[in-house]
Amino acid sequence: MVGSVGNDGLMELGAAAGNGVGKGARPMEEQPPARREVVLGRNVHTASFAVKEPEADDDETGEREAAMASVLALYRRSLVERTKHHLGYPYNLDFDYGALSRLQHFSINNLGDPFIESNYGVHSRQFEVGVLDWFARLWELEKNEYWGYITNCGTEGNLHGILVGREVFPDGILYASLESHYSVFKAARMYRMECVKVDTLISGEIDCADFQRNLLLNRDKPAIINVNIGTTVKGAVDDLDMVIKTLEESGFKDRFYIHCDGALFGLMIPFVKKAPKVTFKKPIGSVSVSGHKFVGCPMPCGVQITRLEHINALSSNVEYLASRDATIMGSRNGHAPIFLWYTLNRKGYRGFQKEVQKCLRNAHYLKDRLREAGIGAMLNELSSTVVFERPKDEEFVRRWQLACEGSIAHVVVMPNVTIDKLDYFLNELAEKRAAWYDQDGMCQPPCIAGDVGQENCACILHKK
Amino acid sequence: MVGSVGNDGLMELGAAAGNGVGKGARPMEEQPPARREVVLGRNVHTASFAVKEPEADDDETGEREAAMASVLALYRRSLVERTKHHLGYPYNLDFDYGALSRLQHFSINNLGDPFIESNYGVHSRQFEVGVLDWFARLWELEKNEYWGYITNCGTEGNLHGILVGREVFPDGILYASLESHYSVFKAARMYRMECVKVDTLISGEIDCADFQRNLLLNRDKPAIINVNIGTTVKGAVDDLDMVIKTLEESGFKDRFYIHCDGALFGLMIPFVKKAPKVTFKKPIGSVSVSGHKFVGCPMPCGVQITRLEHINALSSNVEYLASRDATIMGSRNGHAPIFLWYTLNRKGYRGFQKEVQKCLRNAHYLKDRLREAGIGAMLNELSSTVVFERPKDEEFVRRWQLACEGSIAHVVVMPNVTIDKLDYFLNELAEKRAAWYDQDGMCQPPCIAGDVGQENCACILHKK
Repeated sequence: MVGSVGNDGLMELGAAAGNGVGKGARPMEEQPPARREVVLGRNVHTASFAVKEPEADDDETGEREAAMASVLALYRRSLVERTKHHLGYPYNLDFDYGALSRLQHFSINNLGDPFIESNYGVHSRQFEVGVLDWFARLWELEKNEYWGYITNCGTEGNLHGILVGREVFPDGILYASLESHYSVFKAARMYRMECVKVDTLISGEIDCADFQRNLLLNRDKPAIINVNIGTTVKGAVDDLDMVIKTLEESGFKDRFYIHCDGALFGLMIPFVKKAPKVTFKKPIGSVSVSGHKFVGCPMPCGVQITRLEHINALSSNVEYLASRDATIMGSRNGHAPIFLWYTLNRKGYRGFQKEVQKCLRNAHYLKDRLREAGIGAMLNELSSTVVFERPKDEEFVRRWQLACEGSIAHVVVMPNVTIDKLDYFLNELAEKRAAWYDQDGMCQPPCIAGDVGQENCACILHKK
Repeated sequence: MVGSVGNDGLMELGAAAGNGVGKGARPMEEQPPARREVVLGRNVHTASFAVKEPEADDDETGEREAAMASVLALYRRSLVERTKHHLGYPYNLDFDYGALSRLQHFSINNLGDPFIESNYGVHSRQFEVGVLDWFARLWELEKNEYWGYITNCGTEGNLHGILVGREVFPDGILYASLESHYSVFKAARMYRMECVKVDTLISGEIDCADFQRNLLLNRDKPAIINVNIGTTVKGAVDDLDMVIKTLEESGFKDRFYIHCDGALFGLMIPFVKKAPKVTFKKPIGSVSVSGHKFVGCPMPCGVQITRLEHINALSSNVEYLASRDATIMGSRNGHAPIFLWYTLNRKGYRGFQKEVQKCLRNAHYLKDRLREAGIGAMLNELSSTVVFERPKDEEFVRRWQLACEGSIAHVVVMPNVTIDKLDYFLNELAEKRAAWYDQDGMCQPPCIAGDVGQENCACILHKK
């Protein structure tokens, strides 16, 4: 964290906004998130880099430029360190867009619909449409039958997919498993939709028996379903075929809309042999995937693909842009499509296939090594997300930027996560753990059977 | 437009996606938008750069890299040209973020709330909070009383402000003038809110008499109002004081929420002497402004500031991120805050003041020169948006990237628009116009009195 670098020049710039957080203070970001109560309605100013009004003679002295350059250099150093110690979030941090650096001079904005030109000429629709075509092919929807756009993030994809579902079935009920991403429930609230939370299996997949029970309680209203292609915490892939079968058997034929939230695995699963196929040849309405996750991108972005026939329900004519607008956002980042286009072109389907295989292999390696070390761990068959006992020390959690929930943590094995990196992590974890859990048995690792099943738990009760 | 560069190497890459649009074809983007019917439910593939699967030996031959570099070089050339001939959109294209180019190596993501640290370490919250503080100061809200975040664009600011309003007054009716940005009406539809469109004056400002009539018809429900600080087409600034007075006189005291859509002028108006003040010392709930407009930024972004007290209504705890999430998007672009921070630090309030004054002066120059040339034109007192008779030739409109609506077009005079550039434009317009409207009076310029008032119209009927 830059705030703790403790450089004087840096803090000088930051002081005005720092609420007294100085060199010796403990910025909030260093407090253990586990024990930290998330208090709503507070605006906690941690160390920040205040914007300071320039002096009248700044142009002459160059002091301002020098101070800013110093802040930025320190910040870059912290980014390098934080990028190196990162395992918990599904972001591929291994990319090289050096060839694109000069595009930063331009204000590239893909206003409105990607397929309809606006009068604003500084755009990258040519690249965007190329990328969309690639994804439509991946998910088997014909070029003249799809509509889509490049979003700002996975959340925008979910907001869009669920909105399309609601416009197709205005009185539909939204069904989503408890382990769905929180943006799904945010959408329900934003859109004033009735929402039913469905139970999950221990793997994290949707429990289709509970889904059916809920459907039968609501036979009179159409169903809008969020299907997880890789849940956030456990990387669980909902069984799309079973979901469709459940809907049809419960009398919902032609009265449902399925949105597939493929945030991470939407791009991985097509390359996993035994995986159930995500394809528009099945009766699904939309698929979204994040671009900054498996592909890797400097800023968050995503891809949203839906059926063209659904989009009329959403769009409205807006003469100002000489464009209809069926997107959630109007102005859209025109750089992201170029980053995606660049990587897709370089790697191709074959390149991604290789990377997916490597990630799955490395994930198995991590899970096996954890189990060998007597640490409870789970890895879903189709996933590269390894769930394991939450490390006791929050400093360790922060150091490796692990995402945690209750008693479990996870590592998402992405293309930039090598065996060497995993070994480094595993050795550090084993060493720390020996100190956390003493030999006399007074302090024991937590039981995580409730989260990952007894067979994956290594607590004193469940270990074999 | 790159699609029309007509380079063979480029088209080779683009051909697979081109739907037969080759070198000689007329891509859709070259058709006149005015006469082009916006057809819903069509996915029109114009020239695009298809993603092509790499050959097995591409790594060795380097052909792929060379082809991509050639596409990118041509694209850059077109961006230079399009950036040069740009007048119609309110984007400041004059920026130099060279010092930040190395940040493109990092996947910077400000997940969730800017004030609550997440476990993901590669973020730029320190910069984001510095920028937010600056804007809160500008709009006079104390540091411990505001909440906000850096959005993806002006639309996200409007979506957020109106959502906050709805959560504060769940049964509130949304009021917005007819000339409000289309995202306001999109929000009403997304959020399932009752929405009343209010008439405008000829200037484009909200008509408070009509506003009052509508309020009195709906006394039983609270009011949520979108106030335009610069409308999209005419740059009209709604009279905030009059709006508040109208609400109070109509019996809505303490039963209203005002969102100020300050897309462009939210940052300009604090520096205009005679302008009504946008300040949280008045009973407003939120203000949003775009970052890529007056400040200038490679990608769209915006700033949203609201009262901290309102934010509880919106937020929900999300353990996964160790963060509550009161934003619309979850993952957020971490580069945009650094761009904004960089420019604010360099220019300061004084720098923006100078630029605003320059823009207003240059806008007056443009309007005067248009009128001298016998062209109907209007400029609102507080605005740098010059509205004038729509050029007859759509090629000219596209060349200068003018935004048009019906019979009018506009130029938004931004900091990068110099007198030289305006002269270049004016001379070209005068020359073309002489050809469009012949001397024998058979073909006359359109009457635009209905859009800009008789006194600003220069048609045969209204010219003096």
